[in-house]
Amino acid sequence: MENNREKRLEIAGRIYDLDAEVYQTLGSGLGRVFNDNRRACVEEMAEQLCSQTKNHVLRSEIALIGNMARTIKNKEDRARVMSKYNDILKQVEALHTSFGSLDILDEDLASLNRANLSGRFADGSHLIICIGRTYGCAGTDIGFALADSLKINYYDSEIFADVLERLEADKDSVQDHASFAHNQDLNKSLGIVKGRTLKERLREFNRYHGLSKEDAIFFNQSDLLRDMAQREDFIVMGRCADVILTNLHIPHISIFINAPFDLRVRRVMKLDNLNYKEAVKFLKKLDHRHRSYYEFYTGREWGNSVNYDLCINSASYGIEGSVKLIERIISQHTKR
Amino acid sequence: MENNREKRLEIAGRIYDLDAEVYQTLGSGLGRVFNDNRRACVEEMAEQLCSQTKNHVLRSEIALIGNMARTIKNKEDRARVMSKYNDILKQVEALHTSFGSLDILDEDLASLNRANLSGRFADGSHLIICIGRTYGCAGTDIGFALADSLKINYYDSEIFADVLERLEADKDSVQDHASFAHNQDLNKSLGIVKGRTLKERLREFNRYHGLSKEDAIFFNQSDLLRDMAQREDFIVMGRCADVILTNLHIPHISIFINAPFDLRVRRVMKLDNLNYKEAVKFLKKLDHRHRSYYEFYTGREWGNSVNYDLCINSASYGIEGSVKLIERIISQHTKR
Repeated sequence: MENNREKRLEIAGRIYDLDAEVYQTLGSGLGRVFNDNRRACVEEMAEQLCSQTKNHVLRSEIALIGNMARTIKNKEDRARVMSKYNDILKQVEALHTSFGSLDILDEDLASLNRANLSGRFADGSHLIICIGRTYGCAGTDIGFALADSLKINYYDSEIFADVLERLEADKDSVQDHASFAHNQDLNKSLGIVKGRTLKERLREFNRYHGLSKEDAIFFNQSDLLRDMAQREDFIVMGRCADVILTNLHIPHISIFINAPFDLRVRRVMKLDNLNYKEAVKFLKKLDHRHRSYYEFYTGREWGNSVNYDLCINSASYGIEGSVKLIERIISQHTKR
Repeated sequence: MENNREKRLEIAGRIYDLDAEVYQTLGSGLGRVFNDNRRACVEEMAEQLCSQTKNHVLRSEIALIGNMARTIKNKEDRARVMSKYNDILKQVEALHTSFGSLDILDEDLASLNRANLSGRFADGSHLIICIGRTYGCAGTDIGFALADSLKINYYDSEIFADVLERLEADKDSVQDHASFAHNQDLNKSLGIVKGRTLKERLREFNRYHGLSKEDAIFFNQSDLLRDMAQREDFIVMGRCADVILTNLHIPHISIFINAPFDLRVRRVMKLDNLNYKEAVKFLKKLDHRHRSYYEFYTGREWGNSVNYDLCINSASYGIEGSVKLIERIISQHTKR
């Protein structure tokens, strides 16, 4: 660090002098950040400029000079001082030993985050938005409206289950009638098959190698999501899709939508025709089920902001506002 | 609800026919959403169209038709079908009894959310960004860089404490020397006063009416934030500023920044020169202190996404990416 001591002393001197200049320009007996002992102040700052454990103090002091400088009424004086202020910030940044030089960026995580600005994504990659949400926060309404606005496909748990069932039905068809070949795009986007016979259920048991159907579906989702990601833009609600795509190293945006419990209760009372007590009980049960499912299959904490690129409080935006917010976030990355 | 039954039957009929048209256009034996019994299907849909407890099924079915329609290869066919699809969605929306009609918007909350699009904010209101963050996630770096980029004032806990001390020092001055009148802008933006005498501490005790200094500072912050909000755009780190401003009914944007614990540990090891074990212990202690402070003064859960307009995982964007993300979110609301 010794080798740039001269540079650090020079920058520290400029900071000291800027403080004095601001103090003089404002013409007040108050408000000087540093005291009269130029030499001691400059040496202390030069020290702070190469110490990551102490430089936050210096940053606060520089910010304070900036805050003061912005109160200068005379435009020319303010422009002159702010220009010096900006130069100093650039010099500090160029040191690479001071504040802001230690990033938090996780390269792996960022490379998968489609809302990121780093432009590291293959041009051909599709826009995939994974939305986790609590029941009653209008998360599915937001997802549906967003898909409609972006004109991309929308998959919620029901559609997803249907698509999976259809794929399974296809497999059976292929096994039963070897000539049964269909438009692949279609096979993967279609189908509601209702009611299954005992024979079908037994076949299911064999097909899943004895796994519970829930587990089997979870593992099949992984394949399905990978196929979909190669083919189309889409929004997927829940299904732990964020974690599955991360594990498959497929870029996407993961968003968690939530709203204060009381508001969700009020909404669910209207939505599901429940009284207050029933709504509270119902929501607690559903939250518990969502949390258990997510944590069982991913080992992560459901709804914790560190597990998503972004968390949104839908009560603060409403359905339309949330859709517009998300569109604004992704708008610079899509050709739409 | 009976009075728009005709309308609902008409819409249901159009949905049924669209499904049939898509199925015919795609020319496949698979993939029809509804079965041959037009009358039963239409009546069931008409029922679902006025039942908020059942309409999510219908929404999934409509979405499925949309997903299928988008796979139509012939451009003209696809445009024709999608235009019908969009008309149907508009009709459903106009019913006001079906999905999407029950918003989650909290008028009070939204009126305070400066990132919202509702345009309900007084033109003169200032841009105030409250940033809560965990230690080690580069939250303060992001806040500082954002303030620099937006050219607005930046207040972290150290600057805030200094400003408060300066205000208190002023009060004393006013008491001691009645003629001591200063530039108000300056008084509120300035000051680092280091070291206090016993006399000063005793005076403090009297001034705070026996409250602990911490409590007194918290209550003084409320006044200071209100004054600042009338005067300037700014970013404030922590200080429960989000809750204080909400209680004062002052529009702002509240953001919580966090990053996965392991990444914060790695960063803190470098930042504060600690080994792994020390860093873990240090972070747990700081998290606990932040959480206790926030919960003591606000009664809310620190870091829970329902208490903020937005939560960001900084590891997924890095410092620069996070700054750009926040700028994008607020860009349509500022004249910058």
